[in-house]
Amino acid sequence: MKPGNVGIIGGTGYTGMELLRILARHPLADARIITSRGEAGKSVTELFPSLTGHCDLLFSDPGSADLKSCDVVFSAAPNGVAMTHARSLCDAGVKFIDLSADFRIKDIVVWEKWYGMTHSCPELLEQAVYGLPEVNRQSIGGASLVANPGCYPTAVQLGYLPLVENGLVELDSLIADAKSGISGAGRNASLGTAFSEASDSFKAYAASGHRHLPEIVQGLQEIAGEPVELVFTPHLLPLIRGIHATLYARLNEKGLSFSVEEMQRIFVDRYNNEPFVHVLPSGAHPDTRSVRGSNNCRMSIHQPQGGKTITVLSVEDNLVKGAAGQAIQNMNLMMGFPEESGLESIALVP
Amino acid sequence: MKPGNVGIIGGTGYTGMELLRILARHPLADARIITSRGEAGKSVTELFPSLTGHCDLLFSDPGSADLKSCDVVFSAAPNGVAMTHARSLCDAGVKFIDLSADFRIKDIVVWEKWYGMTHSCPELLEQAVYGLPEVNRQSIGGASLVANPGCYPTAVQLGYLPLVENGLVELDSLIADAKSGISGAGRNASLGTAFSEASDSFKAYAASGHRHLPEIVQGLQEIAGEPVELVFTPHLLPLIRGIHATLYARLNEKGLSFSVEEMQRIFVDRYNNEPFVHVLPSGAHPDTRSVRGSNNCRMSIHQPQGGKTITVLSVEDNLVKGAAGQAIQNMNLMMGFPEESGLESIALVP
Amino acid sequence: MKPGNVGIIGGTGYTGMELLRILARHPLADARIITSRGEAGKSVTELFPSLTGHCDLLFSDPGSADLKSCDVVFSAAPNGVAMTHARSLCDAGVKFIDLSADFRIKDIVVWEKWYGMTHSCPELLEQAVYGLPEVNRQSIGGASLVANPGCYPTAVQLGYLPLVENGLVELDSLIADAKSGISGAGRNASLGTAFSEASDSFKAYAASGHRHLPEIVQGLQEIAGEPVELVFTPHLLPLIRGIHATLYARLNEKGLSFSVEEMQRIFVDRYNNEPFVHVLPSGAHPDTRSVRGSNNCRMSIHQPQGGKTITVLSVEDNLVKGAAGQAIQNMNLMMGFPEESGLESIALVP
Amino acid sequence: MKPGNVGIIGGTGYTGMELLRILARHPLADARIITSRGEAGKSVTELFPSLTGHCDLLFSDPGSADLKSCDVVFSAAPNGVAMTHARSLCDAGVKFIDLSADFRIKDIVVWEKWYGMTHSCPELLEQAVYGLPEVNRQSIGGASLVANPGCYPTAVQLGYLPLVENGLVELDSLIADAKSGISGAGRNASLGTAFSEASDSFKAYAASGHRHLPEIVQGLQEIAGEPVELVFTPHLLPLIRGIHATLYARLNEKGLSFSVEEMQRIFVDRYNNEPFVHVLPSGAHPDTRSVRGSNNCRMSIHQPQGGKTITVLSVEDNLVKGAAGQAIQNMNLMMGFPEESGLESIALVP
Repeated sequence: MKPGNVGIIGGTGYTGMELLRILARHPLADARIITSRGEAGKSVTELFPSLTGHCDLLFSDPGSADLKSCDVVFSAAPNGVAMTHARSLCDAGVKFIDLSADFRIKDIVVWEKWYGMTHSCPELLEQAVYGLPEVNRQSIGGASLVANPGCYPTAVQLGYLPLVENGLVELDSLIADAKSGISGAGRNASLGTAFSEASDSFKAYAASGHRHLPEIVQGLQEIAGEPVELVFTPHLLPLIRGIHATLYARLNEKGLSFSVEEMQRIFVDRYNNEPFVHVLPSGAHPDTRSVRGSNNCRMSIHQPQGGKTITVLSVEDNLVKGAAGQAIQNMNLMMGFPEESGLESIALVP
Repeated sequence: MKPGNVGIIGGTGYTGMELLRILARHPLADARIITSRGEAGKSVTELFPSLTGHCDLLFSDPGSADLKSCDVVFSAAPNGVAMTHARSLCDAGVKFIDLSADFRIKDIVVWEKWYGMTHSCPELLEQAVYGLPEVNRQSIGGASLVANPGCYPTAVQLGYLPLVENGLVELDSLIADAKSGISGAGRNASLGTAFSEASDSFKAYAASGHRHLPEIVQGLQEIAGEPVELVFTPHLLPLIRGIHATLYARLNEKGLSFSVEEMQRIFVDRYNNEPFVHVLPSGAHPDTRSVRGSNNCRMSIHQPQGGKTITVLSVEDNLVKGAAGQAIQNMNLMMGFPEESGLESIALVP
Repeated sequence: MKPGNVGIIGGTGYTGMELLRILARHPLADARIITSRGEAGKSVTELFPSLTGHCDLLFSDPGSADLKSCDVVFSAAPNGVAMTHARSLCDAGVKFIDLSADFRIKDIVVWEKWYGMTHSCPELLEQAVYGLPEVNRQSIGGASLVANPGCYPTAVQLGYLPLVENGLVELDSLIADAKSGISGAGRNASLGTAFSEASDSFKAYAASGHRHLPEIVQGLQEIAGEPVELVFTPHLLPLIRGIHATLYARLNEKGLSFSVEEMQRIFVDRYNNEPFVHVLPSGAHPDTRSVRGSNNCRMSIHQPQGGKTITVLSVEDNLVKGAAGQAIQNMNLMMGFPEESGLESIALVP
Repeated sequence: MKPGNVGIIGGTGYTGMELLRILARHPLADARIITSRGEAGKSVTELFPSLTGHCDLLFSDPGSADLKSCDVVFSAAPNGVAMTHARSLCDAGVKFIDLSADFRIKDIVVWEKWYGMTHSCPELLEQAVYGLPEVNRQSIGGASLVANPGCYPTAVQLGYLPLVENGLVELDSLIADAKSGISGAGRNASLGTAFSEASDSFKAYAASGHRHLPEIVQGLQEIAGEPVELVFTPHLLPLIRGIHATLYARLNEKGLSFSVEEMQRIFVDRYNNEPFVHVLPSGAHPDTRSVRGSNNCRMSIHQPQGGKTITVLSVEDNLVKGAAGQAIQNMNLMMGFPEESGLESIALVP
């Protein structure tokens, strides 16, 4: 028997499915419960045939599932669900990792404005740890409630991190032009993400404002210790998995004092010990497929025409490092497992 | 018999094919000659079966083809070829439209640096008119040699035009994050654009410097009357046709004095009489498929969080408004045909 | 004013949209009314931005729309709707072309079994003409009610036609392995056709029985004058537009008496005067993109290893020759317009 | 140190890459040598960045590589290469698994006709074991030279096996309509498999005769003990990984004596103990994505209209069960490792 007993709330979406895929190969943790209001009683492999032979769970009703018997519970349900479970699970001593947005934003006014609902569990916001291991590894290790970052915020923050931590850029000049594969929209029937509508096409969406904006700004501001102004434009890519963030920032005086080679060194040093962040040689261009199915974030930097702007290219699989993989990484830290457990799988290329 | 006799140099690529597709339905012009060194003697429909019933030309050898008998000649050959034809065709009174980059850049030093070859016909650079009708309609009408703009430069310049013409943005703050469908790489066998490599993936390329950068800068500077600094990042989209330019600029004092509604009005007014540029309602998001196969450029503007940055989203079909369609538009102007002749076809959606 | 006044019932799907795209360029017919229960009052271009500048209709309520004032009415609504309109339109002398399945099957018992509803207008089944011009051109010309064929049935019947008409194959040996692009499933939000589910994947569906089977069998039996046994397996292709039917039949004694060259001649002769059916050289392989957006059906024949089985490869655009294009072709015949009017557009390649 | 020392000849294609991906996670075998004429000296991760952190080999020159020091050598080179290595490796006691076609066909005349070259090592054809574990598990275990099956032949033979073994179908009635993702064409620059040519399109190829035909026929004949007639039509799917074989056969008297349920039972029983073949419930439709990246073959059966024809739907990942995965499975058998070692990875869905 594996030491970690895992429950999943709301497991019929892509992140729930991806948690199961990763846990099936995890040496130390076992999915024991997976809930779904709509599919209770059905076997997981009926919905997800690719898991045949790797998972023999049935979906159970969230009302009757004994989640408190688990060591760790993930919530892969839509926004607004995890906050109804957090209190009781935390009280029962269950470690809780929320893949939705319920505990990501510290400022409840900001959260309620962007998410359009009343928060039912604001008292836990304070103790919730933002689950970006490259920033908060220590606190995640001791946390009982982790807010797993959004997909865009992971790729964007990791790309900006070395620049902001070292005070190299003008903090009111950030522009994140981000592109996501369609799985980011979830496992839903909707006209906008239908094959005949979204295939062989490309467009921006929410260019005037997207929910991941305040999350990114909060994260960068915490590091900078001063206000950050960010323009964030998400786009819909005609591919399944993958986020590519093209990040721009104007170098400040300190930033301009470094050569490209020194800048490259700053990035390399920052992520040298990070198991899942790879800095490519300066001038390279990471492609999203190179992380497809893996928990890696790969990035490279450019300084076009040796000018005032630095460009960071950052890619990840939105379902792995951008969701389920990072959640498992957080579980590993919280449970004291080796951080890479279950996350060694190699990107599927081609 | 149609009044316009057309020749095409180097017709085996996508732009040559697209010229044929448009000319086949053009009421006033007729493709009479199409040259190809490699395919001479072969019928066009053997290479391009979709033209069956619409084109009965054979490819002819560029050496023996009587291009001087044409009223208009397009060069759809790679960079470096058109400049070897321009002199003799212009001398013969043939109108010449070059779809390559040979005559786009006025500064020969800049051109030779970016294109890595010696220009064999610099004396015609002066009289070559840059074929962006929305800027140079008048001069194109009287031109004998037109440099058809690049695909990215068309989408980018059209998007920035109203801002630069009206002096609304800081000219050293321009960032063009541009994405192109793979047909922009031409009809070639190359590993990088193979289906198994480029499909279900996304990446930037030439982030440190791309040949279309000096072309865009030249165009915007001419309008601004002062230096322009641009960061230009091209990306490869896993789709066939379509360019999406996401354009950022920091509003200057004058720019900030306008409301979004007023800004929207400036764009609408600028393009009101343009047959091929459509300004969408403020806050909309054009998708590339909405122009697939058509000569339209569609755009919209956003001012995220009412901040200092304006975002313009601009889409076109890289093979039509970004190449062959714009070339036909230029031909129409040069020949005194109605500007929309042959270009009425509707985007193929879905 | 164009002589043909056109109405469209249920215009918010892909076939309605495609009718509008074709009619916008039709020299002799004009869309005047388009109905939609759900979108009444909205402008067509709000739903279909690619039609901007080409269509200024509003959707009107089917209850109040004056369809009887039209010369021709198309029904692009789901199965079961056209049969409620047919009686009154036919009585009013309006020519009626139904793109759904309501009038395709002559045997009402068979129809009700496969379509799972009661037919409300069985008395018109007799006079409804099956709108496959390559078989029924004459009767279509005089018809007031035309049942436009299904997408698969068009590609399959055209491929088998020369073999069945000439009695060259064993009629109980037909196997049609057909593949359709996803637009064939309509403009709907459904999980199965979501990009993240259907992209980068392929599968059969309804392999045990599909509604288009009885339609194909009926058509081939009518020609053969004897029973036909067909195995029909549809598959879902990860592309937007296109049907590829791979058709197998065992040659009978007569069939085996012909050489491949003679067989090729039989196909060529059969379709020699057909404007929209192209027979490729024997041994060729048509691809679906070569008909994308055009009204053509392209086919080729193979006799593998000189054996007993003949293979026919037949492609069409499911939304054009497989739906809206063929409907316009039928309208042209019914109205006495040139058969190719409005249907000259060239496939969009690449 | 892992007990199995592995060498790979010709490792720059997709099957070489896939061998590396699988071996990197294999608990008992280690890739030690990988040769490439063109890339000798380069690091593997320079070509295949997705392997970063999982493989630190350099490509070595085939001339100087000490392949004889390996326990097992795979040849992932093009046809014609393995036969030049087989003799010396076998003499040195190295187990040799050829992923090309060099040792698949026993009849050298047939081989030389279809592959258009002279066989340089015909004396080893006799002892080469055809590496389809579901048929030849025993002999593979004792083999020193294994001919790894082709991608199509694996999916087709596994689908027909239960029918042919049990004598249920007319052996001159087999029709295999097979569709492959584009990675089956290899990691090459070629116009036909360029994204802009192959994407959003579909076509058959080699419909008059494909090299995998004699391989399939040989395999089925060996089982049947009598001649088999097969029509085999391959098609190119616009997706990266996946083969879908739609298999038709006319049931003979014995076959017709079984109900569908009994037929289903025959399939289930046949593959009950096979770790990598899954029989779905009768009437189901496997999709290629459900095996993407996994070593599984999934299949289902249909008897349309309860008629004389049985339809088998069989899917696999052409690079895994259709190539590298099956080769590893063969290595496991030859080396006495557990058959599933290294092959437990779950399909990447979505």
